[in-house]
Amino acid sequence: IESKLPKVGTTIFTTMGKLAYQYDAVNLSQGFPNFNADSKLLKLVQEAISEGYNQYAPMQGIYSLREIISEKIENLYGHSYNPENEITITASATQGIFTAISTFVKPNDEVIIFKPAYDCYEPAITLCGGVIVPIQLLDADFKIDWENFKAAITPKTKMVIINTPHNPTGTILSEQDMLKLQYILEDTNIILLSDEVYEHLVFDGKTHESAAKFQGLASRSILCASFGKTFHVTGWKMGYCAAPKELMLEFRKVHQYVVFCVNHPVQHGVAQYLKNPKNYIGLNTFYQQKRDYFLNAIQNSRFKISPCTGTYFQILDYSSITDENDISFAERLIKEYKIASIPISVFNLDNQDNKQLRFCFAKTEETLDKAAEILNRI
Amino acid sequence: IESKLPKVGTTIFTTMGKLAYQYDAVNLSQGFPNFNADSKLLKLVQEAISEGYNQYAPMQGIYSLREIISEKIENLYGHSYNPENEITITASATQGIFTAISTFVKPNDEVIIFKPAYDCYEPAITLCGGVIVPIQLLDADFKIDWENFKAAITPKTKMVIINTPHNPTGTILSEQDMLKLQYILEDTNIILLSDEVYEHLVFDGKTHESAAKFQGLASRSILCASFGKTFHVTGWKMGYCAAPKELMLEFRKVHQYVVFCVNHPVQHGVAQYLKNPKNYIGLNTFYQQKRDYFLNAIQNSRFKISPCTGTYFQILDYSSITDENDISFAERLIKEYKIASIPISVFNLDNQDNKQLRFCFAKTEETLDKAAEILNRI
Ligand SMILES: CSCCC(=O)C(=O)O
Ligand SMILES: CSCCC(=O)C(=O)O
Repeated sequence: IESKLPKVGTTIFTTMGKLAYQYDAVNLSQGFPNFNADSKLLKLVQEAISEGYNQYAPMQGIYSLREIISEKIENLYGHSYNPENEITITASATQGIFTAISTFVKPNDEVIIFKPAYDCYEPAITLCGGVIVPIQLLDADFKIDWENFKAAITPKTKMVIINTPHNPTGTILSEQDMLKLQYILEDTNIILLSDEVYEHLVFDGKTHESAAKFQGLASRSILCASFGKTFHVTGWKMGYCAAPKELMLEFRKVHQYVVFCVNHPVQHGVAQYLKNPKNYIGLNTFYQQKRDYFLNAIQNSRFKISPCTGTYFQILDYSSITDENDISFAERLIKEYKIASIPISVFNLDNQDNKQLRFCFAKTEETLDKAAEILNRI
Repeated sequence: IESKLPKVGTTIFTTMGKLAYQYDAVNLSQGFPNFNADSKLLKLVQEAISEGYNQYAPMQGIYSLREIISEKIENLYGHSYNPENEITITASATQGIFTAISTFVKPNDEVIIFKPAYDCYEPAITLCGGVIVPIQLLDADFKIDWENFKAAITPKTKMVIINTPHNPTGTILSEQDMLKLQYILEDTNIILLSDEVYEHLVFDGKTHESAAKFQGLASRSILCASFGKTFHVTGWKMGYCAAPKELMLEFRKVHQYVVFCVNHPVQHGVAQYLKNPKNYIGLNTFYQQKRDYFLNAIQNSRFKISPCTGTYFQILDYSSITDENDISFAERLIKEYKIASIPISVFNLDNQDNKQLRFCFAKTEETLDKAAEILNRI
């Protein structure tokens, strides 16, 4: 059987997760919390099941959920999306991203992405016959060189994908960045796919610069967000996309044949829970404390800490420890030291090796202690 | 914005469902039960939530669920799928079908489908740049003319899609049909996509002839199934695909980037629930009774009843009532008579109009009574 994704293997998250399980390692690889979600949220979904919300939801998602998402975006970012035709509930941000790419990218269309990049963009572009145009982030601080970006635009550029806060590097785009992007895209028809699944995880008093904040970007953007990340329920597989209606109506034409609709009781529970902004506003502080706890615990290790301003991922540079490559070092850490991380090279341009591993700190203090104890020994 | 699906509007299920809601019509349009699922099943999922199964499931689905599915298939159809690499849990049968098509259909590949056909196959093929090769089912009884099928095969044929029990016609493929299909495909590399979401809804003592029963088909087939249909929880959006590992491993490469994985607590609940075969074995009788109840109640109406041997859909022929077309008659029934159905023409080759509507009888007797009272008046 010929593959339509000849270069694709199993995602790194599955590979490292399996190894972690096999070797009973402290698992800071795949990004998910190892503590439970708010019991209030769990109860809301359980009630929705008891109340009988067990048949198809509307294809675009239940109205009350789309409405409260619209209010949330307006309050946080000042842009108003019409719940009727500008917001769609997706079966995870991954499904939103896949669907957005499938809706708009035609064979030979070019899509600009920034490397290192989260691993789900490229296979989706390839499946559509699109051409991936990768741009390397600047080495030291993972910033975007906007001149490089501008130079990469051609008449065939259909889409650019940004991701802020950024997985795997933990960096965020600044207001300056977004203004530059807006300026460069001004006279083009390029669609912006803005992966903002970590929107509520921004630290050190910085703010999340959503594409929705910038009128010239909002008008050409598909925003992708995730409830799994925000509410500590990655296994519920629910997120949403927001976009101007010209884009959203096309998106829905594809969405309806990818999954038709999304788990109904989860939608009901989340719609109720979202009504209280306290349920997501405190997340920045919560995860900043975890980051600080983790970094404090490993400050005397031989790893070099790279700045983390958002997401729940910390990149550690191990170049002073060994010159093994990322993958084999990550594997050895699991097998010999019983700690699992994600090698960054798999996300890099040409899998370049920069001696960096990613550690997820969405973990209990007990787990972070165990991890630190190991990292300090390496 | 140019569309990649220029001919596609909103699915008929959304359109008719919305109208039904707007006119407060008795809703026999979109296929879903209007009674609740077994409270034991609801409880199992609620418990899984309480027990903390709220983070990512494995990409391919939890092992216990894949294992019990494998046992179920072996018991019912005598074919053994390895849970490790031949079964994958999907976020609905729709997602399984979409993913199977996306995995294998390349630009200019031909895919043979039978019309009338459920509406999710064609857009998926079109998105891949594939060529749809439609074959009309025989008029009177919706049977497949296998000579027509054989004649439609070319060196470019990549896939054929069958659907038994068949939505929207309520017919099933016989053992004879499957043997003919097996014989015709024998010396080809054609992949069979077998949509069997109504596998447990076969009536009148007939048996479901799964592609898994026929070795020459099983070895080239992707089976798609749905828990939503089987357990009266269409809103939970979970199904699975089974296929030989050469096909399944390719399928998973795409699946992991379409949704990554599927709702975790639902998987746990369903895995427990599936352990008791009584929970699906009785479904044939249950729905046959509903069919008979409904048909008995409308036997004196002016609609002509077409034989229904499977699914929870009944086709009614209204040619003796009016010569309006399916869509406008279906709309008028909602607006004037307050009963909603699905026009068959939308599934037909060239949207041909045969004066047929589809009614879903997965409803309480109270609802079926109301529906019959109206249909008898028309
Ligand atoms: C979808 S599995 C990967 C989870 C995640 O977002 C990550 O670990 O980066
Ligand atoms: C996925 S919505 C349509 C439900 C269904 O299978 C039908 O009504 O035919």
